[in-house]
Amino acid sequence: MPGEKGVKGVVIISGGLDSTILLYWALHQGYSIHALSFDYGQRHGKELKCARKTCRNLGVKHLVVDISGIRELLASSALTNHGIEVPEEHYTHESQKITIVPNRNAIMLNIALGYAVNIGAEKVFYAAHYNDRAIYPDCRWEFVESVNVTAKLACDNPRLEVVAPFVHKTKAEIVALGRELGVPFADTWSCYKGGEKACGVCGTCRERIEAFQINGLRDPLEYEIEVEW
Amino acid sequence: MPGEKGVKGVVIISGGLDSTILLYWALHQGYSIHALSFDYGQRHGKELKCARKTCRNLGVKHLVVDISGIRELLASSALTNHGIEVPEEHYTHESQKITIVPNRNAIMLNIALGYAVNIGAEKVFYAAHYNDRAIYPDCRWEFVESVNVTAKLACDNPRLEVVAPFVHKTKAEIVALGRELGVPFADTWSCYKGGEKACGVCGTCRERIEAFQINGLRDPLEYEIEVEW
Repeated sequence: MPGEKGVKGVVIISGGLDSTILLYWALHQGYSIHALSFDYGQRHGKELKCARKTCRNLGVKHLVVDISGIRELLASSALTNHGIEVPEEHYTHESQKITIVPNRNAIMLNIALGYAVNIGAEKVFYAAHYNDRAIYPDCRWEFVESVNVTAKLACDNPRLEVVAPFVHKTKAEIVALGRELGVPFADTWSCYKGGEKACGVCGTCRERIEAFQINGLRDPLEYEIEVEW
Repeated sequence: MPGEKGVKGVVIISGGLDSTILLYWALHQGYSIHALSFDYGQRHGKELKCARKTCRNLGVKHLVVDISGIRELLASSALTNHGIEVPEEHYTHESQKITIVPNRNAIMLNIALGYAVNIGAEKVFYAAHYNDRAIYPDCRWEFVESVNVTAKLACDNPRLEVVAPFVHKTKAEIVALGRELGVPFADTWSCYKGGEKACGVCGTCRERIEAFQINGLRDPLEYEIEVEW
């Protein structure tokens, strides 16, 4: 996708690795960006602090939308129900099933699409990536394609579009892109547990560590466990 | 659609005429129903009171989800931005454009779909109807069909479905159905203005009055203007 200078877009940023790199990428492509984050009562609220810091550093307008009212409805997931343990296993479908918040990404995308219409933006940038494919159905390209048909119909706007440039990229490829773009990785947060340091053992920590290792990089984040870089 | 006794479903109820009749219809079909309403900072909060009353009377479990956090994002509509006047004209595309809350119904449907997954329900009942077709793109059958493809993908559940039995019905036909089902019309609210009595002149009041008139019925609601029944 070539740079489309000045075209307005909304980046959904969690404060994690992927969506932060996505924001840098979208700005690098020349889009005029508004950033949007969601507070849905997630356990890892530290992510939101990272999102705020990144947007402040980049001078990007940033809104945090409180949708914690939906928490009660979707409370079967370990990410929103603090009574359920986050699994400390490798990042596979079976181990991570408990972290699925049903239809979460569709909800966030649809709010972002409404916001885009409201500010006259045509694009919503979404950081779904290939590693999530097996676990989260709403991170798959076929979901993104379908959302795009629905969004155009819902808003009667054939130019409205969800753009997911990482949907076929692995986490390691995204980290490589982040390095190219000079993203300060220390300002991102991935750990599902939200402690002082990253736990290093939950699925998303393991995945993050591996992505840095594949690139021969050292993650600047502090971990509770000793990691061999 | 035949009754599917005991199949669990979620009815999205605003407290207006159509969604209240929909709830009666779904119960009559034999579904086991949870009702869901949304508080999105709408001007006509009186609707929500009606929804609560109806569910209490029917003994239906009812949740009201606060999504007023999205109001700021979608604030270009007269329904959510109290600084914009509700148009006092007939119910046409041009006059009602200002009441479009961008992507609102897609947002509500997707939250309801997440809730459905969470409680093991397969159906989300949605009161979109034919009169809204010209004005609100997210009330059209092609939108509903597309949402259904997206929802199955998003939740990896081929049985999950939005059911919109009124999508080809006019408001007058829905009122006729409501009479058949014995719906207490006095417990519904349509007026966009949310005053003590219904204003009788906003688009939705005009449409409601006409639907009763076509059926030779008198609306039990009190109106600020004199209506010939």
